[in-house]
Amino acid sequence: MEKFSVTVLGCGSATPGPKHFTSSQVVNVRNKLFMIDCGEGTQIQLRRSRVAFARINHIFISHLHGDHCYGLLGMISSFALLGRTAPLFVHAPWEMWNILSAELDFYCRDLDFKVEFRGFDATKAEVIYIDRSLTVTTIPLKHRVPCAGFLFREEPVPDHLDRQAADFYGVPSCEYDRIKNGGDFTQPDGTVISHDRLTKPAPAPRSYAYCCDTMYNPEMIPQIMNANVLYHDCTYSVQETQNAVKNFHSTSADAANTAREAGAGQLVLGHFSARYNDETVLQNEACGIFPNTILARENLEIDIL
Amino acid sequence: MEKFSVTVLGCGSATPGPKHFTSSQVVNVRNKLFMIDCGEGTQIQLRRSRVAFARINHIFISHLHGDHCYGLLGMISSFALLGRTAPLFVHAPWEMWNILSAELDFYCRDLDFKVEFRGFDATKAEVIYIDRSLTVTTIPLKHRVPCAGFLFREEPVPDHLDRQAADFYGVPSCEYDRIKNGGDFTQPDGTVISHDRLTKPAPAPRSYAYCCDTMYNPEMIPQIMNANVLYHDCTYSVQETQNAVKNFHSTSADAANTAREAGAGQLVLGHFSARYNDETVLQNEACGIFPNTILARENLEIDIL
Repeated sequence: MEKFSVTVLGCGSATPGPKHFTSSQVVNVRNKLFMIDCGEGTQIQLRRSRVAFARINHIFISHLHGDHCYGLLGMISSFALLGRTAPLFVHAPWEMWNILSAELDFYCRDLDFKVEFRGFDATKAEVIYIDRSLTVTTIPLKHRVPCAGFLFREEPVPDHLDRQAADFYGVPSCEYDRIKNGGDFTQPDGTVISHDRLTKPAPAPRSYAYCCDTMYNPEMIPQIMNANVLYHDCTYSVQETQNAVKNFHSTSADAANTAREAGAGQLVLGHFSARYNDETVLQNEACGIFPNTILARENLEIDIL
Repeated sequence: MEKFSVTVLGCGSATPGPKHFTSSQVVNVRNKLFMIDCGEGTQIQLRRSRVAFARINHIFISHLHGDHCYGLLGMISSFALLGRTAPLFVHAPWEMWNILSAELDFYCRDLDFKVEFRGFDATKAEVIYIDRSLTVTTIPLKHRVPCAGFLFREEPVPDHLDRQAADFYGVPSCEYDRIKNGGDFTQPDGTVISHDRLTKPAPAPRSYAYCCDTMYNPEMIPQIMNANVLYHDCTYSVQETQNAVKNFHSTSADAANTAREAGAGQLVLGHFSARYNDETVLQNEACGIFPNTILARENLEIDIL
């Protein structure tokens, strides 16, 4: 199976503390690396992980709270010190451009690579990245400021040709691509050999949904339906529901209900408030609603299966 | 003896790495706390140390390279989250004001405390802080951009009155202050009792010089003369002298020669290049020139004696 995994670099909320770094993670899709969020200290965590710094070409910023973006300038400066020449694409809410460009002008005037800013409107679902094997779409979330989650979805791949069957039915090689992409084969005598008899089905496209920061947001369910893995804001326990609503964050129950309603394969809880010495309480609460729930932690690598 | 100490939060150069955080330290003078420099991750280190976050009221930024200031915005945001109301004074080269004010306007609009910016001209020695017990003066350094060191010097205190001697010679209490500040006492019969017989000398004012980032800079020697402790740029070993000159940094020998010429009490080497797995080589080189040399390390507390 092609590589598709997520490495958590930080999963704490608000301020980097003794237990957790603030939000950042790296998604690996067929060895292309994509960073999501970049809180202060992200580059420290990145060096501690096994993730290859130089292979990150795209950084997606969910929203403009410091715990999700204060590490960006340091990342860019360190890329420069490490001799980067490839362009770096920063995808973020449009509002970031003015301040980021001012910071780059001031602190990073002589970069040997281009920082290409790609703004998006966090209130709408937009395709913001696409290549042969992957699409990244923003997910409008409900937070105090415009905030987008990100849906990483593999592009469907053609079914695999069953060479033995193809030879048996006399399929010429010029027909292979059409058949892999869903076509049937008609023999010279008019007999139709169906697609299913000539191919083995490709694995279903996998998807990963990053939904942070957000309060409970049922409007996004159709968009993240059947995600193999859902990473969801879980700042609070259910006892702190009032705080969650007040601060536009989620409880463990909010996260678990979202996973259940979306038919997710696995739920990963993150963005923990520093008040929890042991986040098992959050996991236990969520498991009561959605059993396949795990806690994020720094350096956790999650395979998207 | 009154408290006067330095806690190193980070002593690496360029980028925060697996071994060292970038530049930051906290000076404690009679339990008032002053931060010098604020690289990315400073607040993480601060929480790991025993330094009380909320008691820092002044931050001094030496120059505007990211490894000395990228942590400032995160510190300010975290002060806000922790409920700070006292003003925070940021002393930095004037050039910082435009970008910092833009960043504060964007990221920190609703602070419950004031960030008071105090710009200085890093090319001149200026007194930038003064209270009853302490003066902080900038030290012009030689770096690629305007850069200031900081000299923390205790204000001289009056000598201690020897109460037994004062009683013996019949000194009235209204004369105490004059005598402690250097005056003699004249008895009613005209006999002069010298200041020295009535007092015990106050300890000499102590001083701490932070000189980073800089290449070898003999022009600052008169200003830091007899500093009890000198923290000096030591990015490279003597083998890398060419790199040191090219990049406007110092070798171990540059640091040690400076300490020797300034008659420092102790030399603390810092701002290490990441190329040294073991910085003992730097210490050994420096000790050949100036024996009382130690290596900085994260969480090291140095008493200024």
